[in-house]
Amino acid sequence: MREITIGLLGCGTVGRGFVELLCRERQRIGSRDGIDLRLARILVRDDRKPRAGIDQRLLTTSAIEVIDGSDIVVELVGGVHSAGAFVRRALARKCDVVTANKALLAASGRELFALAAHHDVRIAFEASVCGGIPIIRALQRGLTGDSIESVSGILNGTCNYILTRMEAEGLDFAAALRRAQEAGFAEADSTLDISGEDAAQKLRILADLAFPAESTIVRARVHGISDVTREEIEQARSRRCVIRQIATARRAHGWIDLRVERRELPDSHPFAAVRDENNAVVLRGRAVGEMLFAGRGAGSLPTAAAVLADVIDLAREPRASMAET
Amino acid sequence: MREITIGLLGCGTVGRGFVELLCRERQRIGSRDGIDLRLARILVRDDRKPRAGIDQRLLTTSAIEVIDGSDIVVELVGGVHSAGAFVRRALARKCDVVTANKALLAASGRELFALAAHHDVRIAFEASVCGGIPIIRALQRGLTGDSIESVSGILNGTCNYILTRMEAEGLDFAAALRRAQEAGFAEADSTLDISGEDAAQKLRILADLAFPAESTIVRARVHGISDVTREEIEQARSRRCVIRQIATARRAHGWIDLRVERRELPDSHPFAAVRDENNAVVLRGRAVGEMLFAGRGAGSLPTAAAVLADVIDLAREPRASMAET
Repeated sequence: MREITIGLLGCGTVGRGFVELLCRERQRIGSRDGIDLRLARILVRDDRKPRAGIDQRLLTTSAIEVIDGSDIVVELVGGVHSAGAFVRRALARKCDVVTANKALLAASGRELFALAAHHDVRIAFEASVCGGIPIIRALQRGLTGDSIESVSGILNGTCNYILTRMEAEGLDFAAALRRAQEAGFAEADSTLDISGEDAAQKLRILADLAFPAESTIVRARVHGISDVTREEIEQARSRRCVIRQIATARRAHGWIDLRVERRELPDSHPFAAVRDENNAVVLRGRAVGEMLFAGRGAGSLPTAAAVLADVIDLAREPRASMAET
Repeated sequence: MREITIGLLGCGTVGRGFVELLCRERQRIGSRDGIDLRLARILVRDDRKPRAGIDQRLLTTSAIEVIDGSDIVVELVGGVHSAGAFVRRALARKCDVVTANKALLAASGRELFALAAHHDVRIAFEASVCGGIPIIRALQRGLTGDSIESVSGILNGTCNYILTRMEAEGLDFAAALRRAQEAGFAEADSTLDISGEDAAQKLRILADLAFPAESTIVRARVHGISDVTREEIEQARSRRCVIRQIATARRAHGWIDLRVERRELPDSHPFAAVRDENNAVVLRGRAVGEMLFAGRGAGSLPTAAAVLADVIDLAREPRASMAET
């Protein structure tokens, strides 16, 4: 059994899910893959606060302690500044990195991927888009033989929760937003979700994978959902339609056109069946045609499952430098 | 640019699609991945028959010629006997193998995987289940952090075509089968499809991936669709339901329960929206919940895209012995 040491940065919703899932699945992974995933240290803000199900002795307030002793660093801090500094240090220390941080990738993805290549380590980021749906892998590995023509999807679970609650319960926007906050799907400050910015960040990550060569020239239009009214949704329904926030990336005459916008879709459209906090993506390939992926796009355990799958992938294929140690 | 030599066994529907797709995508793959996928030889029954778009000089009637000069052997012969002999030879000659042959994997999968491990080469088989939908990769890589509880799906495009044509056009079974044959979705001998055996073979492949530890004890029940009547479909419709052939694998008290059966499903069920020759799979994971994958499950180019993605995956991560040469 090969031991792989994991350092976890951040112990919020996804971080706690990751610890729970790793605990539950560690033995199964060991007997299947011959790797022992050992969680060595966890970065937290307050290491004296007890956390259910988590060994207090693993907690530390020192990111350096977490990073320097690890084969794989899992970054679940969120945000751009500290997270970026942590990831840069991890790469420089020859750790592979797993991150769910779409904001960081949107802001500094290219720089970080170049840095990883320079240090001959890897960054995995399945959890950064659509939680547990393995859409990143589909683009990185499953559909590499085809030319992708477009990517579209419901990429923000909060917006979808709000729109489908307005639809199902006849709520207005403000009431549906409160409902989303009560249910834990929306942050107290939900600007990033509502404005479409969160979906745009995820779309940019998908577009970079789908259109690797052309993606230097990008035209992006991003519209939020805060002005969707109950009346609009009712009128759509009278036409047997629904309103969804749809993010779309497509090739257009040498550039990449990115849009996040509300769209009215007929009841029979596959995205119309995507309700509450669920996500869905349709990839259109020249050879494969349209392919739909749908499932839970957020939440503690689904996102943690994507993080853990990345950790397993990296651990299964150790870099030369890891195999030597 | 690293050159990888490909030997193609079989030049039927998927084989021709593979040649077309490789031609079209070779340059893009080269600049993206730094690998030059060179098609060296193609095994055919008659090497004097001209084939549109295929260089006559590549054709041969000698499987040995195809296998012995290749880094990667693509097996698209179908059937069990010759295909099995070819794959065994390829593995013994240290070639990686890509196959779309579900019948071969169902009959001899374990033996062949053991043989591949013995020779330190690999077998990739994304195209064996659900054509272009990357469901094998989702189980091998995307969802490895989770415990899969069940796998269910519409795995046979011919049956789905027949059932949805009966539904849409009020045809009886025999007329819908003829329609499927005319459209090229059903073989002249469609027994394997209609009996449920084809879906059962694919289900077995998915179950082996989803439940690796327990899959020695399997209980399988397979029912075909040839006795579905027009009246049944109409009665289902009067209840706002549809009839689909559904394959399901789930854990049950230490064994794996496999079923292929017709089921009546409400209109709102995700499988009800799967029409004609399309396929769909729902994976249920303990952490991720239900995840839907849907798209073209058969056809020349979609299946060829899955074969080519496998070839690229193998070529990107050369074995030590390949890198040396």
